[in-house]
Amino acid sequence: MLFYDCSTAPSPRRARMFIAEKGLKIESREISLAEKEQLSPAFLAVNPRATVPVLITRSGATLTENLAIATYLEAVSPNPPLLGETADEKAQVMQWNALVEQQGGLPIADVLRNSNKHMRGRALTGPVNFEQIPELAERGRLRVGLFFDLLEQRLSQSAYLAGERLTMADITGFVFVDFARVIKASIPDTSPATRAWFDAIKAHPSASL
Amino acid sequence: MLFYDCSTAPSPRRARMFIAEKGLKIESREISLAEKEQLSPAFLAVNPRATVPVLITRSGATLTENLAIATYLEAVSPNPPLLGETADEKAQVMQWNALVEQQGGLPIADVLRNSNKHMRGRALTGPVNFEQIPELAERGRLRVGLFFDLLEQRLSQSAYLAGERLTMADITGFVFVDFARVIKASIPDTSPATRAWFDAIKAHPSASL
Repeated sequence: MLFYDCSTAPSPRRARMFIAEKGLKIESREISLAEKEQLSPAFLAVNPRATVPVLITRSGATLTENLAIATYLEAVSPNPPLLGETADEKAQVMQWNALVEQQGGLPIADVLRNSNKHMRGRALTGPVNFEQIPELAERGRLRVGLFFDLLEQRLSQSAYLAGERLTMADITGFVFVDFARVIKASIPDTSPATRAWFDAIKAHPSASL
Repeated sequence: MLFYDCSTAPSPRRARMFIAEKGLKIESREISLAEKEQLSPAFLAVNPRATVPVLITRSGATLTENLAIATYLEAVSPNPPLLGETADEKAQVMQWNALVEQQGGLPIADVLRNSNKHMRGRALTGPVNFEQIPELAERGRLRVGLFFDLLEQRLSQSAYLAGERLTMADITGFVFVDFARVIKASIPDTSPATRAWFDAIKAHPSASL
Protein backbone atom coordinates (compact mmCIF):
# COMPACT_ATOMS: atom_id res chain seq x y z
CA MET A 1 0.00 0.00 0.00
CA LEU A 2 1.02 3.62 -0.44
CA PHE A 3 -0.32 6.61 1.50
CA TYR A 4 -0.17 10.19 0.19
CA ASP A 5 -0.11 12.47 3.21
CA CYS A 6 0.30 16.15 4.09
CA SER A 7 1.54 16.99 7.57
CA THR A 8 -0.22 20.38 7.77
CA ALA A 9 -3.78 19.58 6.65
CA PRO A 10 -6.70 18.11 8.64
CA SER A 11 -8.07 15.61 6.10
CA PRO A 12 -4.86 13.57 5.72
CA ARG A 13 -4.33 13.81 9.48
CA ARG A 14 -7.58 11.88 9.96
CA ALA A 15 -6.27 9.00 7.84
CA ARG A 16 -2.81 9.20 9.47
CA MET A 17 -4.34 8.89 12.95
CA PHE A 18 -6.57 6.03 11.80
CA ILE A 19 -3.57 4.14 10.40
CA ALA A 20 -1.62 4.72 13.62
CA GLU A 21 -4.52 3.60 15.87
CA LYS A 22 -4.67 0.42 13.79
CA GLY A 23 -0.97 -0.12 14.46
CA LEU A 24 -0.27 -0.25 10.72
CA LYS A 25 2.91 0.87 8.99
CA ILE A 26 2.26 2.07 5.46
CA GLU A 27 4.82 3.65 3.15
CA SER A 28 3.93 7.31 2.74
CA ARG A 29 4.76 10.29 0.57
CA GLU A 30 4.40 13.89 1.68
CA ILE A 31 2.50 16.22 -0.67
CA SER A 32 3.14 19.88 0.12
CA LEU A 33 -0.10 21.84 -0.10
CA ALA A 34 1.88 25.00 0.76
CA GLU A 35 3.79 24.51 -2.49
CA LYS A 36 0.58 23.55 -4.36
CA GLU A 37 2.04 20.12 -5.08
CA GLN A 38 -1.50 18.69 -5.17
CA LEU A 39 -2.01 20.56 -8.44
CA SER A 40 1.19 19.26 -10.06
CA PRO A 41 0.81 17.01 -13.13
CA ALA A 42 2.53 14.19 -11.22
CA PHE A 43 0.00 14.25 -8.38
CA LEU A 44 -3.00 14.88 -10.63
CA ALA A 45 -2.06 11.62 -12.35
CA VAL A 46 -2.52 9.93 -8.96
CA ASN A 47 -5.67 11.83 -7.93
CA PRO A 48 -7.38 14.07 -10.50
CA ARG A 49 -9.45 15.54 -7.65
CA ALA A 50 -6.22 17.17 -6.34
CA THR A 51 -6.85 16.22 -2.71
CA VAL A 52 -5.06 14.36 0.06
CA PRO A 53 -5.26 11.86 1.69
CA VAL A 54 -4.93 9.16 -0.97
CA LEU A 55 -4.48 5.47 -0.23
CA ILE A 56 -3.39 3.07 -2.94
CA THR A 57 -4.74 -0.31 -1.84
CA ARG A 58 -3.09 -3.72 -2.13
CA SER A 59 -5.10 -4.33 -5.28
CA GLY A 60 -3.99 -0.99 -6.74
CA ALA A 61 -7.26 0.93 -6.25
CA THR A 62 -7.06 4.65 -5.52
CA LEU A 63 -9.07 5.84 -2.50
CA THR A 64 -9.40 9.59 -2.00
CA GLU A 65 -12.11 9.81 0.68
CA ASN A 66 -11.43 9.34 4.39
CA LEU A 67 -14.43 7.09 4.90
CA ALA A 68 -13.33 4.86 2.02
CA ILE A 69 -9.79 4.61 3.40
CA ALA A 70 -11.07 3.79 6.90
CA THR A 71 -13.56 1.23 5.58
CA TYR A 72 -10.85 -0.50 3.54
CA LEU A 73 -8.37 -0.63 6.42
CA GLU A 74 -11.04 -1.85 8.87
CA ALA A 75 -11.83 -4.71 6.46
CA VAL A 76 -8.22 -5.82 5.89
CA SER A 77 -7.06 -5.15 9.48
CA PRO A 78 -10.06 -5.52 11.81
CA ASN A 79 -8.26 -5.01 15.15
CA PRO A 80 -8.64 -2.84 17.05
CA PRO A 81 -12.11 -2.11 15.64
CA LEU A 82 -12.50 1.62 14.90
CA LEU A 83 -15.82 1.44 13.04
CA GLY A 84 -17.80 -0.52 15.66
CA GLU A 85 -18.56 -4.23 16.03
CA THR A 86 -22.31 -4.62 16.65
CA ALA A 87 -24.99 -3.18 14.36
CA ASP A 88 -25.76 -0.43 16.86
CA GLU A 89 -22.08 0.44 17.36
CA LYS A 90 -21.41 0.56 13.63
CA ALA A 91 -24.42 2.83 13.17
CA GLN A 92 -23.32 5.21 15.94
CA VAL A 93 -19.85 5.54 14.40
CA MET A 94 -21.38 6.54 11.07
CA GLN A 95 -23.95 8.78 12.77
CA TRP A 96 -21.34 10.79 14.67
CA ASN A 97 -18.74 10.78 11.94
CA ALA A 98 -21.33 12.29 9.58
CA LEU A 99 -22.53 14.86 12.12
CA VAL A 100 -18.98 15.95 12.91
CA GLU A 101 -18.06 16.23 9.22
CA GLN A 102 -21.17 18.24 8.34
CA GLN A 103 -21.60 20.35 11.47
CA GLY A 104 -17.91 20.81 12.31
CA GLY A 105 -15.53 20.11 9.45
CA LEU A 106 -17.55 21.87 6.79
CA PRO A 107 -18.19 25.13 8.71
CA ILE A 108 -14.53 25.36 9.81
CA ALA A 109 -13.45 24.93 6.17
CA ASP A 110 -16.06 27.51 5.10
CA VAL A 111 -14.56 30.08 7.47
CA LEU A 112 -10.94 29.38 6.60
CA ARG A 113 -11.25 29.08 2.84
CA ASN A 114 -13.60 32.06 2.45
CA SER A 115 -11.69 34.52 4.63
CA ASN A 116 -7.96 33.71 4.50
CA LYS A 117 -6.18 35.93 1.99
CA HIS A 118 -3.87 33.08 1.00
CA MET A 119 -6.92 31.15 -0.22
CA ARG A 120 -8.30 33.80 -2.54
CA GLY A 121 -9.58 32.02 -5.64
CA ARG A 122 -9.22 28.66 -3.83
CA ALA A 123 -12.43 28.61 -1.76
CA LEU A 124 -12.92 24.91 -2.47
CA THR A 125 -10.47 22.03 -2.68
CA GLY A 126 -10.12 20.40 -6.09
CA PRO A 127 -8.77 21.18 -9.53
CA VAL A 128 -11.23 24.03 -10.29
CA ASN A 129 -10.81 27.50 -8.80
CA PHE A 130 -13.70 29.19 -6.98
CA GLU A 131 -13.74 32.72 -5.56
CA GLN A 132 -14.28 33.36 -1.88
CA ILE A 133 -17.77 34.19 -0.53
CA PRO A 134 -17.31 36.34 2.61
CA GLU A 135 -20.88 35.69 3.82
CA LEU A 136 -20.07 31.98 3.87
CA ALA A 137 -17.20 32.65 6.27
CA GLU A 138 -19.59 34.58 8.55
CA ARG A 139 -22.17 31.81 8.44
CA GLY A 140 -19.47 29.23 9.14
CA ARG A 141 -18.38 31.04 12.29
CA LEU A 142 -21.93 30.94 13.70
CA ARG A 143 -22.15 27.24 12.87
CA VAL A 144 -18.84 26.45 14.60
CA GLY A 145 -20.39 27.79 17.82
CA LEU A 146 -23.36 25.44 17.35
CA PHE A 147 -20.92 22.58 16.71
CA PHE A 148 -19.24 23.08 20.07
CA ASP A 149 -22.71 23.02 21.70
CA LEU A 150 -23.49 19.73 19.94
CA LEU A 151 -20.20 18.16 21.08
CA GLU A 152 -20.69 19.18 24.69
CA GLN A 153 -24.25 17.89 24.76
CA ARG A 154 -23.12 14.50 23.45
CA LEU A 155 -19.89 14.18 25.43
CA SER A 156 -21.57 15.06 28.72
CA GLN A 157 -23.57 11.82 28.18
CA SER A 158 -20.98 9.57 26.52
CA ALA A 159 -17.22 9.15 27.04
CA TYR A 160 -16.61 9.01 23.29
CA LEU A 161 -18.80 10.20 20.43
CA ALA A 162 -20.06 6.79 19.36
CA GLY A 163 -20.05 5.14 22.80
CA GLU A 164 -17.58 3.87 25.38
CA ARG A 165 -14.46 3.61 23.24
CA LEU A 166 -12.51 5.57 20.70
CA THR A 167 -13.66 5.21 17.08
CA MET A 168 -13.24 6.95 13.77
CA ALA A 169 -15.89 9.49 14.83
CA ASP A 170 -13.59 10.67 17.61
CA ILE A 171 -10.60 10.89 15.30
CA THR A 172 -12.66 13.05 12.94
CA GLY A 173 -13.94 15.22 15.79
CA PHE A 174 -10.53 15.58 17.43
CA VAL A 175 -8.84 16.62 14.19
CA PHE A 176 -11.47 19.26 13.39
CA VAL A 177 -11.56 20.66 16.94
CA ASP A 178 -7.77 20.94 16.92
CA PHE A 179 -7.79 22.49 13.43
CA ALA A 180 -10.31 25.14 14.55
CA ARG A 181 -7.29 27.06 15.87
CA VAL A 182 -6.71 28.31 12.31
CA ILE A 183 -9.97 30.28 12.58
CA LYS A 184 -9.17 31.27 16.18
CA ALA A 185 -11.91 29.03 17.59
CA SER A 186 -11.39 26.66 20.50
CA ILE A 187 -13.30 24.59 23.04
CA PRO A 188 -15.39 27.01 25.14
CA ASP A 189 -14.71 27.23 28.89
CA THR A 190 -18.33 26.10 29.33
CA SER A 191 -17.51 22.71 27.72
CA PRO A 192 -15.71 20.60 30.35
CA ALA A 193 -16.79 17.28 28.86
CA THR A 194 -15.44 18.25 25.45
CA ARG A 195 -12.17 19.37 27.05
CA ALA A 196 -11.78 16.05 28.91
CA TRP A 197 -12.51 14.09 25.71
CA PHE A 198 -10.05 16.20 23.71
CA ASP A 199 -7.28 15.82 26.28
CA ALA A 200 -7.80 12.05 26.47
CA ILE A 201 -7.38 11.70 22.70
CA LYS A 202 -4.46 14.13 22.61
CA ALA A 203 -2.58 11.78 24.96
CA HIS A 204 -2.63 9.03 22.29
CA PRO A 205 0.67 8.72 20.38
CA SER A 206 -1.37 8.83 17.15
CA ALA A 207 -2.30 12.46 17.91
CA SER A 208 1.34 13.59 17.80
CA LEU A 209 2.22 12.19 14.39
CA MET B 1 -38.26 -0.34 14.08
CA LEU B 2 -39.88 2.92 13.05
CA PHE B 3 -39.00 5.05 10.04
CA TYR B 4 -39.78 8.77 9.80
CA ASP B 5 -40.11 9.61 6.13
CA CYS B 6 -41.08 12.51 3.85
CA SER B 7 -42.31 11.66 0.38
CA THR B 8 -41.14 14.93 -1.23
CA ALA B 9 -37.53 15.25 -0.01
CA PRO B 10 -34.35 13.61 -1.34
CA SER B 11 -32.67 12.59 1.94
CA PRO B 12 -35.52 10.37 3.21
CA ARG B 13 -35.92 9.00 -0.31
CA ARG B 14 -32.40 7.61 -0.08
CA ALA B 15 -33.31 5.64 3.07
CA ARG B 16 -36.67 4.61 1.60
CA MET B 17 -34.99 3.17 -1.50
CA PHE B 18 -32.36 1.42 0.61
CA ILE B 19 -35.07 -0.21 2.77
CA ALA B 20 -36.96 -1.31 -0.35
CA GLU B 21 -33.85 -2.74 -2.05
CA LYS B 22 -33.24 -4.74 1.14
CA GLY B 23 -36.77 -6.11 0.86
CA LEU B 24 -37.59 -4.84 4.36
CA LYS B 25 -40.96 -3.65 5.59
CA ILE B 26 -40.64 -1.05 8.33
CA GLU B 27 -43.52 0.88 9.89
CA SER B 28 -43.25 4.48 8.77
CA ARG B 29 -44.63 7.91 9.58
CA GLU B 30 -44.83 10.77 7.12
CA ILE B 31 -43.43 14.12 8.27
CA SER B 32 -44.63 17.00 6.09
CA LEU B 33 -41.76 19.39 5.38
CA ALA B 34 -44.22 21.56 3.40
CA GLU B 35 -46.11 22.12 6.65
CA LYS B 36 -42.86 22.52 8.63
CA GLU B 37 -43.76 19.50 10.71
CA GLN B 38 -40.04 18.81 11.24
CA LEU B 39 -39.96 21.91 13.46
CA SER B 40 -42.96 20.87 15.58
CA PRO B 41 -42.33 20.11 19.27
CA ALA B 42 -43.50 16.53 18.73
CA PHE B 43 -40.91 15.86 16.01
CA LEU B 44 -38.13 17.83 17.71
CA ALA B 45 -38.59 15.42 20.63
CA VAL B 46 -37.73 12.61 18.18
CA ASN B 47 -34.90 14.43 16.38
CA PRO B 48 -33.67 17.76 17.78
CA ARG B 49 -31.79 18.27 14.51
CA ALA B 50 -35.19 18.69 12.76
CA THR B 51 -34.29 16.48 9.80
CA VAL B 52 -35.65 13.40 8.07
CA PRO B 53 -34.99 10.54 7.59
CA VAL B 54 -34.96 9.10 11.10
CA LEU B 55 -34.76 5.41 11.92
CA ILE B 56 -35.55 4.16 15.42
CA THR B 57 -33.61 0.90 15.70
CA ARG B 58 -34.68 -2.33 17.40
CA SER B 59 -32.71 -1.28 20.47
CA GLY B 60 -34.41 2.13 20.49
CA ALA B 61 -31.48 4.19 19.17
CA THR B 62 -32.27 7.22 17.00
CA LEU B 63 -30.38 7.41 13.69
CA THR B 64 -30.66 10.64 11.72
CA GLU B 65 -27.93 10.21 9.11
CA ASN B 66 -28.39 8.19 5.92
CA LEU B 67 -25.04 6.45 6.24
CA ALA B 68 -25.86 5.42 9.81
CA ILE B 69 -29.26 4.05 8.77
CA ALA B 70 -27.74 2.13 5.86
CA THR B 71 -24.92 0.74 8.00
CA TYR B 72 -27.37 -0.43 10.65
CA LEU B 73 -29.70 -2.12 8.15
CA GLU B 74 -26.78 -3.76 6.32
CA ALA B 75 -25.61 -5.24 9.64
CA VAL B 76 -29.01 -6.60 10.72
CA SER B 77 -30.12 -7.61 7.23
CA PRO B 78 -27.03 -8.41 5.13
CA ASN B 79 -28.76 -9.59 1.94
CA PRO B 80 -28.68 -8.34 -0.68
CA PRO B 81 -25.44 -6.54 0.18
CA LEU B 82 -25.70 -2.83 -0.64
CA LEU B 83 -22.46 -1.67 1.02
CA GLY B 84 -20.10 -4.17 -0.66
CA GLU B 85 -18.71 -7.54 0.44
CA THR B 86 -14.93 -7.52 -0.09
CA ALA B 87 -12.62 -4.86 1.35
CA ASP B 88 -12.23 -3.27 -2.07
CA GLU B 89 -15.97 -3.29 -2.75
CA LYS B 90 -16.79 -1.78 0.64
CA ALA B 91 -14.21 0.95 0.04
CA GLN B 92 -15.59 1.79 -3.41
CA VAL B 93 -19.12 2.13 -2.03
CA MET B 94 -17.90 4.62 0.58
CA GLN B 95 -15.68 6.38 -1.97
CA TRP B 96 -18.51 7.00 -4.43
CA ASN B 97 -21.16 7.66 -1.83
CA ALA B 98 -18.95 10.39 -0.37
CA LEU B 99 -18.10 11.88 -3.77
CA VAL B 100 -21.75 11.96 -4.80
CA GLU B 101 -22.84 13.56 -1.51
CA GLN B 102 -20.13 16.23 -1.62
CA GLN B 103 -19.95 16.95 -5.34
CA GLY B 104 -23.63 16.41 -6.16
CA GLY B 105 -25.97 16.53 -3.19
CA LEU B 106 -24.36 19.51 -1.53
CA PRO B 107 -24.21 21.79 -4.61
CA ILE B 108 -27.80 20.95 -5.58
CA ALA B 109 -28.93 21.85 -2.05
CA ASP B 110 -26.82 25.03 -2.19
CA VAL B 111 -28.63 26.14 -5.35
CA LEU B 112 -32.13 25.27 -4.14
CA ARG B 113 -31.92 26.56 -0.60
CA ASN B 114 -30.09 29.79 -1.51
CA SER B 115 -32.29 30.82 -4.44
CA ASN B 116 -35.84 29.52 -3.86
CA LYS B 117 -38.07 32.24 -2.39
CA HIS B 118 -39.89 29.68 -0.26
CA MET B 119 -36.62 28.93 1.52
CA ARG B 120 -35.76 32.48 2.56
CA GLY B 121 -34.34 32.33 6.06
CA ARG B 122 -34.06 28.52 5.74
CA ALA B 123 -30.83 28.17 3.77
CA LEU B 124 -29.74 25.21 5.88
CA THR B 125 -31.68 22.29 7.33
CA GLY B 126 -31.87 22.15 11.11
CA PRO B 127 -33.46 24.00 13.99
CA VAL B 128 -31.54 27.27 13.44
CA ASN B 129 -32.48 29.75 10.69
CA PHE B 130 -29.84 31.00 8.25
CA GLU B 131 -30.32 33.61 5.54
CA GLN B 132 -29.78 32.79 1.89
CA ILE B 133 -26.43 33.59 0.21
CA PRO B 134 -27.14 34.19 -3.50
CA GLU B 135 -23.47 33.71 -4.48
CA LEU B 136 -23.64 30.21 -3.00
CA ALA B 137 -26.49 29.37 -5.37
CA GLU B 138 -24.39 30.59 -8.31
CA ARG B 139 -21.39 28.56 -7.18
CA GLY B 140 -23.59 25.53 -6.71
CA ARG B 141 -24.84 25.71 -10.28
CA LEU B 142 -21.29 25.65 -11.64
CA ARG B 143 -20.50 22.68 -9.41
CA VAL B 144 -23.56 20.73 -10.56
CA GLY B 145 -22.14 20.90 -14.10
CA LEU B 146 -18.86 19.46 -12.84
CA PHE B 147 -20.81 16.74 -11.01
CA PHE B 148 -22.41 15.57 -14.23
CA ASP B 149 -18.93 15.42 -15.81
CA LEU B 150 -17.69 13.29 -12.90
CA LEU B 151 -20.61 10.88 -13.20
CA GLU B 152 -20.19 10.43 -16.94
CA GLN B 153 -16.46 9.83 -16.61
CA ARG B 154 -17.06 7.12 -14.01
CA LEU B 155 -20.11 5.49 -15.57
CA SER B 156 -18.49 5.24 -18.98
CA GLN B 157 -16.01 2.87 -17.28
CA SER B 158 -18.25 1.09 -14.76
CA ALA B 159 -21.87 -0.12 -14.94
CA TYR B 160 -22.57 1.16 -11.43
CA LEU B 161 -20.72 3.75 -9.37
CA ALA B 162 -18.94 1.29 -7.07
CA GLY B 163 -18.58 -1.58 -9.54
CA GLU B 164 -20.69 -4.16 -11.30
CA ARG B 165 -23.81 -4.06 -9.14
CA LEU B 166 -26.14 -1.57 -7.53
CA THR B 167 -25.06 -0.25 -4.12
CA MET B 168 -25.89 2.57 -1.78
CA ALA B 169 -23.66 4.86 -3.85
CA ASP B 170 -26.02 4.43 -6.81
CA ILE B 171 -29.10 5.07 -4.67
CA THR B 172 -27.50 8.30 -3.45
CA GLY B 173 -26.49 9.32 -6.97
CA PHE B 174 -29.85 8.43 -8.50
CA VAL B 175 -31.81 10.39 -5.90
CA PHE B 176 -29.68 13.51 -6.32
CA VAL B 177 -29.70 13.36 -10.13
CA ASP B 178 -33.49 13.00 -10.09
CA PHE B 179 -33.84 15.80 -7.52
CA ALA B 180 -31.76 18.15 -9.70
CA ARG B 181 -35.01 18.85 -11.58
CA VAL B 182 -35.90 21.32 -8.79
CA ILE B 183 -33.01 23.53 -9.95
CA LYS B 184 -33.82 22.84 -13.61
CA ALA B 185 -30.72 20.70 -14.10
CA SER B 186 -30.72 17.32 -15.78
CA ILE B 187 -28.41 14.74 -17.34
CA PRO B 188 -26.68 16.43 -20.31
CA ASP B 189 -27.23 15.02 -23.80
CA THR B 190 -23.48 14.43 -23.87
CA SER B 191 -23.79 11.87 -21.03
CA PRO B 192 -25.11 8.63 -22.52
CA ALA B 193 -23.55 6.40 -19.85
CA THR B 194 -25.18 8.42 -17.07
CA ARG B 195 -28.51 8.24 -18.89
CA ALA B 196 -28.29 4.45 -19.23
CA TRP B 197 -27.37 4.09 -15.55
CA PHE B 198 -30.20 6.38 -14.48
CA ASP B 199 -32.78 4.54 -16.59
CA ALA B 200 -31.63 1.15 -15.26
CA ILE B 201 -32.13 2.28 -11.66
CA LYS B 202 -35.40 4.04 -12.44
CA ALA B 203 -36.78 0.65 -13.58
CA HIS B 204 -36.38 -0.74 -10.05
CA PRO B 205 -39.65 -0.80 -8.05
CA SER B 206 -37.76 0.94 -5.22
CA ALA B 207 -37.43 4.04 -7.39
CA SER B 208 -41.21 4.51 -7.62
CA LEU B 209 -41.97 4.49 -3.91
